[in-house]
Amino acid sequence: SDLKVKNITEFNQAVKNAKPGDNIILANGNWQNTELVFKGKGTKSLPITLKAEENGKVILSGLSNLRISGEYLIVSGLVFKNGYTPTTEVISFKTSSKELANNCRLTETVIDNFSNPERQESDYWIGVYGKNNRIDHNHFEGKRNVGVTMAVRLNSVESQENFHQIDHNYFGPRPILGSNGGETLRIGTSHYSLTKSNTIVEYNYFDRCDGEVEIISNKSGSNTYRYNTFFESQGTLTIRHGRGNTVDGNLFLGNNVENTGGIRVINEDQTIINNILINLAGYRFRSALTIMNGVPNSPINRYNSVDNAKISNNAFINCNNIQFGVGSDAERSAVPTNSMMTNNLFYNEKTVGLFDVFDDMSGIKFSNNFVSENTKTDMFKGGFTKTKFKLVKDKMGFTLPEVKGIKPQINENIATKDNTGTGFYSKADKEIQLSSGKIIKVAAGQNTLYDAAKNSEPGDILELTSSDIYTTDKIIEINHPLTFKSDLKIKPTILFEKQALFQIENGGSLALENLIFDGKDAPDYTGNAVIRTSKYSMNHNYILHINNCNFINLDVNNSFDVVVIAKNTMANLFKIENSTFDKISGNVVSLDKEVDDTGIYNAEKVILNNNVFSNISGTVLQLYRGGTDESTTGPFLNINHCIFDNVGNGKKNKSNAAMLIHGAQGIRIENNIFTNSKKIKLELIVGEPVVNILNNNFFKTESTLITGDQKFTEKDNFMIDPAFT
Amino acid sequence: SDLKVKNITEFNQAVKNAKPGDNIILANGNWQNTELVFKGKGTKSLPITLKAEENGKVILSGLSNLRISGEYLIVSGLVFKNGYTPTTEVISFKTSSKELANNCRLTETVIDNFSNPERQESDYWIGVYGKNNRIDHNHFEGKRNVGVTMAVRLNSVESQENFHQIDHNYFGPRPILGSNGGETLRIGTSHYSLTKSNTIVEYNYFDRCDGEVEIISNKSGSNTYRYNTFFESQGTLTIRHGRGNTVDGNLFLGNNVENTGGIRVINEDQTIINNILINLAGYRFRSALTIMNGVPNSPINRYNSVDNAKISNNAFINCNNIQFGVGSDAERSAVPTNSMMTNNLFYNEKTVGLFDVFDDMSGIKFSNNFVSENTKTDMFKGGFTKTKFKLVKDKMGFTLPEVKGIKPQINENIATKDNTGTGFYSKADKEIQLSSGKIIKVAAGQNTLYDAAKNSEPGDILELTSSDIYTTDKIIEINHPLTFKSDLKIKPTILFEKQALFQIENGGSLALENLIFDGKDAPDYTGNAVIRTSKYSMNHNYILHINNCNFINLDVNNSFDVVVIAKNTMANLFKIENSTFDKISGNVVSLDKEVDDTGIYNAEKVILNNNVFSNISGTVLQLYRGGTDESTTGPFLNINHCIFDNVGNGKKNKSNAAMLIHGAQGIRIENNIFTNSKKIKLELIVGEPVVNILNNNFFKTESTLITGDQKFTEKDNFMIDPAFT
Ligand SMILES: [Ca+2]
Ligand SMILES: [Ca+2]
Repeated sequence: SDLKVKNITEFNQAVKNAKPGDNIILANGNWQNTELVFKGKGTKSLPITLKAEENGKVILSGLSNLRISGEYLIVSGLVFKNGYTPTTEVISFKTSSKELANNCRLTETVIDNFSNPERQESDYWIGVYGKNNRIDHNHFEGKRNVGVTMAVRLNSVESQENFHQIDHNYFGPRPILGSNGGETLRIGTSHYSLTKSNTIVEYNYFDRCDGEVEIISNKSGSNTYRYNTFFESQGTLTIRHGRGNTVDGNLFLGNNVENTGGIRVINEDQTIINNILINLAGYRFRSALTIMNGVPNSPINRYNSVDNAKISNNAFINCNNIQFGVGSDAERSAVPTNSMMTNNLFYNEKTVGLFDVFDDMSGIKFSNNFVSENTKTDMFKGGFTKTKFKLVKDKMGFTLPEVKGIKPQINENIATKDNTGTGFYSKADKEIQLSSGKIIKVAAGQNTLYDAAKNSEPGDILELTSSDIYTTDKIIEINHPLTFKSDLKIKPTILFEKQALFQIENGGSLALENLIFDGKDAPDYTGNAVIRTSKYSMNHNYILHINNCNFINLDVNNSFDVVVIAKNTMANLFKIENSTFDKISGNVVSLDKEVDDTGIYNAEKVILNNNVFSNISGTVLQLYRGGTDESTTGPFLNINHCIFDNVGNGKKNKSNAAMLIHGAQGIRIENNIFTNSKKIKLELIVGEPVVNILNNNFFKTESTLITGDQKFTEKDNFMIDPAFT
Repeated sequence: SDLKVKNITEFNQAVKNAKPGDNIILANGNWQNTELVFKGKGTKSLPITLKAEENGKVILSGLSNLRISGEYLIVSGLVFKNGYTPTTEVISFKTSSKELANNCRLTETVIDNFSNPERQESDYWIGVYGKNNRIDHNHFEGKRNVGVTMAVRLNSVESQENFHQIDHNYFGPRPILGSNGGETLRIGTSHYSLTKSNTIVEYNYFDRCDGEVEIISNKSGSNTYRYNTFFESQGTLTIRHGRGNTVDGNLFLGNNVENTGGIRVINEDQTIINNILINLAGYRFRSALTIMNGVPNSPINRYNSVDNAKISNNAFINCNNIQFGVGSDAERSAVPTNSMMTNNLFYNEKTVGLFDVFDDMSGIKFSNNFVSENTKTDMFKGGFTKTKFKLVKDKMGFTLPEVKGIKPQINENIATKDNTGTGFYSKADKEIQLSSGKIIKVAAGQNTLYDAAKNSEPGDILELTSSDIYTTDKIIEINHPLTFKSDLKIKPTILFEKQALFQIENGGSLALENLIFDGKDAPDYTGNAVIRTSKYSMNHNYILHINNCNFINLDVNNSFDVVVIAKNTMANLFKIENSTFDKISGNVVSLDKEVDDTGIYNAEKVILNNNVFSNISGTVLQLYRGGTDESTTGPFLNINHCIFDNVGNGKKNKSNAAMLIHGAQGIRIENNIFTNSKKIKLELIVGEPVVNILNNNFFKTESTLITGDQKFTEKDNFMIDPAFT
């Protein structure tokens, strides 16, 4: 029978009384701070169902979650949003360590941005325990805190060899986390990785799952991944631990977005067949295909070497990198053995160096693979044939290469944005871009900017219409993407009386253009800043873009910085260009608040282009990413055409440097002039970073100090008096 | 006429239209987020008044403030609470840098706990500008963020020689800030300190104003402080800068509370007369009387030496310290000159060493001063007579000493708690003590502790009534003082599944007694803790007290700590006693989150007494107070009768020590056993700390490493095998 319930008391009563075949129906509405415990025993033909009165109209919000245990239970039509779980999981397939769910189904359910506001507070959105459960046609989007989105657990015998089915789910955007723990799906853990899981993952759509290097982290045996689509996702399907897994007929669409990857292979007995990988831009751990080196007699949490791998009939189309022996070092010295790679197509008419081989690949038998004519293959002893591929447009509109009877085909039921997820929940993008809104004209005066910002909407542009002085005695909170700019020949000047002018709050991004920021009215107190982030955790990543601005007189007291950020914040992009900075008693930018050395960091990409930094007592940049974790590929730093004149010579500059870069993964410092400045310190400690220090003028400046055990390129630098007047 | 207004629009209209003699009456009620700008021109006989409909029934809350400018304005009867100012001041005697208030009066107004939640965000509660203003009969209590409570500004000629009168105000409790910027009243700044202020401060009551070393910071000339009472305030009336000031007839009541001080004298031409100082316990900068050394040709922001001081007819009754030449060092080498000290009484029959003299005091002419017979005076060349004082009870009940015609008298109108402040606002204590509430019995089970804590009230005691297992999969938030304890012979065990068991929120304090904390169910994730503070700023100081507890198995992953605290938090007391800690992969306690070296720190007093710390991979204690600021006297550390067995030997222990103590002001490490442990590191960098390392056994333990340029005592330590089995 149907049991409609309106509150938690009625729900608990209904659960208690439920018999096979019953439907417990949650009344439409907002269920705030509600913890649902759904225990029951249905039968195969007469399951017990928990469902929404109408799909999508039952909202679990605040501190809410759902736990299920028993047999033949179905959950359907719920939406979790505007909150987060008070426990360790949002939806758990257990109610206690002894009471698990078996033969249960979660379907047509949504978890949307239901993230703990503390980005380093861990939880799972779905914890799968027991056996024979199905998770299908759900919509999971916007996990912003640390912790796997969906975890299949094998931590007791009752959850092993589980034959779960995970299908037709829409895994929506997961932003870059900036640390380990941003996996979208994980099956098993290293501890139980020698156990079979027998989980099938099929027909799922992974849409921009960028959390970390592992989109999927396989850590158990005998799983099957097939007919899934990975769209612009900055990571790979990683067979991290466990043996005997199959990756079959998946589609990877990179659209040349940076860091998009394909399949990463580790361990024994893996089968990688019939996959189609298009326009993947990533390298190293995020190559279109990554064959890892292993550790001899590896501990269970390190790397078993590749053995008995079968890699065949895959098509790599305009991918940038295929890499073998990745991770090869003193520890990871075990090369692949007893493996074969055959009938694969590598179509790329532009790149010569498609393949990288970092160790001995004689343990892989290469045969009947085809490459474009330009591709360099002499690192292999045969097995690759250069060819002019025939290009054929398939039914879905993809152009696929063919050769000599090898015709890659995309499964006709492959996951798409349309055929996955719920029937009712929109997949439209929620992110609003900077400067995408309306223009608001702002006259000079006291707090006119503050008032305009307060009344703005996401994406708006505040245009300063006067070259006079704008003042403020309040902190301007940036709660959404907001641009401050002028088009005037004489830039407007902004003065401020509080310890900061702008504070970027969670969800905010900030662009500044053609303005002057003068610090002279700031309080005579140590630690002022023009821009700072919220002092609290921000689980939304932000952008800061400064163009054509001047920063002056940041010296009313010690440690006056241009930008101060807080721990537990993450910038996707930090871009400063065509700007000048003069007389600053603190630092320009310090992105160094994660000091726990666990691989967490504060900005993915930092670009300093065409700026002048003069008379900076502290540093121009401090960028810190500590620890040895390899789950991330950032931060990336690019400094080009900048002048550093008298930088870092202040007494309170503890770093004793003009810039201090620790653990960044990409560093390009090119075409800059340094004069009368402290040194650059580069600490290259982890992850084979790409480092280039090229064509800089270091005049009366200390030599660059590079420490750590990683490679770098430092060349064409010189010392010539720039003769500034 | 009376103009009653109900909202900001009506208020602004009324202000615009107000004529001499008008009363603008704010309607009773809550004025949320209201910024009042009160400009007007009254006359001496016909002022314009802004007042509450009924005293105390007009509440300014949220982001609110008041600015006044003009002539002959009166503000009366308002209450600011439940919020903080969005600008730099709550009540400002200006509306812009050019528009100041003159001949205005602020009276019968309350600012209660109207503190920015960010403790290091600075503001003033009252900024006084202009001339001839009176601030009287107000109630100011509970400033918890950085910044002077009341600042008289001299930053333009229109605000100098101002003849303000500050009288009959109640300055209620201001908690220890743990950094500079906790002054209750400041007059002037070093920059304008050669200017006369001519402010009179009289008949005010300072009740436990503990913010920092300066209760009052005088930084200008020709001010008068008289007939004020300082009750249990942990600081002094400091004549920090400026000349020709008078301190006359004030009463200091220390009640032997630690750090209570009297008067600190610096600069030229100061007159200190007729003050009565009773039971003051402080030393150094917080002595009952501190005569500072100066800097020769001092820069304006350092120390002018004492010259032409007149110190007479003061009575020091059972005070602990009278110090001369304080701060004497290579820089502060200028001794007092041309001064006199006469007719002062020093009654203390218990202390021999009342006086400390750190430099040449021949520039002070001592005459006709009287001391108790036990007091040592041979550091002076005469001027002190040993005597048996006659003790006389005065009208107010104080026992005062008399001798040979010198009869100290307390002014009959001296400030009291009753005769100061408003007529309507309660001065009753708001702080609730740990374990002062009811007992709540809690049975073992899942989340029983969580539920009990959620339903508790401040001061309650949660008594665990079973020796079984208590589990929780949610973080227990400690929002008010709360005690968890058992009286059982077999201690109850508490397990937890989240990254922390307890989180102390703003306003919370925590006591734990007779319990076992087992970390084995915590997530396999780096950075767990049993107890942590809010990650946000806490502007309420907290207490943590652990007694007779056992902590085990904190090693499921790296960096599992017992206690983790956040930046911008401050403990008044951190006490761990009679407890054991075994197998911990992180640290026991890290109080080291203030790394900006500005004198900020995280705990005032740390006591470790009678504990066993074994197999600790990290440190037992990290305590950090950086910088060279001397506004505070903490932190204080006392470690007694503890065992350190295999502490600090973990690979990830970056400090390479068993304990790392940086910049603490009092350190006593006594009667402890260290075995197989890393060293203690003491970094003595500032402020003449009192350091004793006595009678410890360092067996198979690295030698204590003491760095910095301060004195210490290290003796009677030894090395004997403790022969633990
Ligand atoms: Ca990972
Ligand atoms: Ca001070």
